Amino acid sequence: MKIGILGLGLIGGSLGLDLRSHGHYVFGVSRRESTCTKAIALGSVDEASVNMSLLTAAEVVFICTPIGLIIPTIEQLIAHLPANVVITDVGSVKTPIVKAISPLWTNFIGGHPMAGTAESGIEAAQKHLFVGRPYVLTPTATTPPDALSCVEKIVNQLGCRVYHCPPENHDRAVSWISHLPVMVSAALIVACLSENDSQVLQLAQNLASSGFRDTSRVGGGNPELGMMMAQYNQQELLRSLRQYRHHLDEFIHLIEQENWTGLEELLKLTQSNRPNFVEDC
Amino acid sequence: MKIGILGLGLIGGSLGLDLRSHGHYVFGVSRRESTCTKAIALGSVDEASVNMSLLTAAEVVFICTPIGLIIPTIEQLIAHLPANVVITDVGSVKTPIVKAISPLWTNFIGGHPMAGTAESGIEAAQKHLFVGRPYVLTPTATTPPDALSCVEKIVNQLGCRVYHCPPENHDRAVSWISHLPVMVSAALIVACLSENDSQVLQLAQNLASSGFRDTSRVGGGNPELGMMMAQYNQQELLRSLRQYRHHLDEFIHLIEQENWTGLEELLKLTQSNRPNFVEDC
Repeated sequence: MKIGILGLGLIGGSLGLDLRSHGHYVFGVSRRESTCTKAIALGSVDEASVNMSLLTAAEVVFICTPIGLIIPTIEQLIAHLPANVVITDVGSVKTPIVKAISPLWTNFIGGHPMAGTAESGIEAAQKHLFVGRPYVLTPTATTPPDALSCVEKIVNQLGCRVYHCPPENHDRAVSWISHLPVMVSAALIVACLSENDSQVLQLAQNLASSGFRDTSRVGGGNPELGMMMAQYNQQELLRSLRQYRHHLDEFIHLIEQENWTGLEELLKLTQSNRPNFVEDC
Repeated sequence: MKIGILGLGLIGGSLGLDLRSHGHYVFGVSRRESTCTKAIALGSVDEASVNMSLLTAAEVVFICTPIGLIIPTIEQLIAHLPANVVITDVGSVKTPIVKAISPLWTNFIGGHPMAGTAESGIEAAQKHLFVGRPYVLTPTATTPPDALSCVEKIVNQLGCRVYHCPPENHDRAVSWISHLPVMVSAALIVACLSENDSQVLQLAQNLASSGFRDTSRVGGGNPELGMMMAQYNQQELLRSLRQYRHHLDEFIHLIEQENWTGLEELLKLTQSNRPNFVEDC
């Protein structure tokens, strides 16, 4: 097929590498001429341009910009496309995007490949980035079945595990397992820093080991990503944060009451249920 | 030197392997005959017995039992020892132990080697377990300097990083970087399990990836360890939990108020300060 990719960063660039290796013809669009040149040189795209009109010839377009640019980009893009072109995006929050785009473009289907590395940009693009990773598609009651099956056929070739769900379910699920952990983990670092005895703080920093390293990792990550989660998934994140606080209070209460049996039950529950989320533990 | 080890599990057994390789003569005591036999076979000790009187000949005794047995074990042991023998323990909480033992035995010095593996028992004992890991010694105003320097000389041979601090500082520091993370992480798992839409819960379990895996690891660990932290370090853990809750509320408030600048500042703070705790990130 003829596939367009708008936004040639890690995700767009990696997508292009795999799609080309499956025989698709890939058009790439970036805001920067230098990125277009690199994308061709790296083999991510067949043709590239800073001009959106390049995508007129595409049958499907993947929007791979940062999340804040998805809606304005599609608003501009659709002037260049025949109505039968299928548009999909790769944003990590789905409800606001699906709500904004559905009235503008019938053949739209939201998507979220849950893959990434600590790197970013076209230079970080790699083959097989999506193998074994989840790829969520979020059709609604008004999504044309052909648009869904078209995108699904393509993403299936990436070797990922494809899930379908309503955009609201996606946003609630990623709030629990991705966005909430960032805030929980960041609050841990802030709390430790609040220790006002400088000798104790220094000692804590000297003694911190793998437990602290793992628990604090996502909270010490890219601030822009954390901001984006909070801004675009605000209501679901608040819901999960308030629920989390409720359960944190339960732990505090059990420890205050010296209810060791109750605490043991809770810790047995967490031990036995974690493998349902994380297979390899 | 002639060194006694009481409690031949992972820590006691590993300690014995290293101390023998440095030329010390090691007496081991375990409650079980079979453990004594294994400890000799594995090379952790030179002699072993289920009888504490074996330790009468030791110059220093390391108490390596589970934390709940340290105090009752020392209470029994001291009937067998000449008053010049130095006793030290390896418990992960120090204040209650130091407080209970100091009036009973002058030549006592609390210690905590911060090393371990997911395994336990004498079979899991390994050489060089302590290399590069912190080993905290907690002398008080009444600790004889000779007792401290005797234990310090021995643990320095293990290749660990030795820190000295009051027992209270140790317990506060490990509360921040070890005990608090367990509760924070366990509360995350409990909160996720509270999702009452079974489709969303299933989706969350399917989508959970490295971020959730790392943040939930210590909260899904051994319930007995979590219990022990809470029971023996109750006051410090409650202090850090309450402080943590305060900072969690700060995150919730910023997101409720859509104060994105404030949230960004906090996330920049966590990003820039995490490396002070975790060197290799």
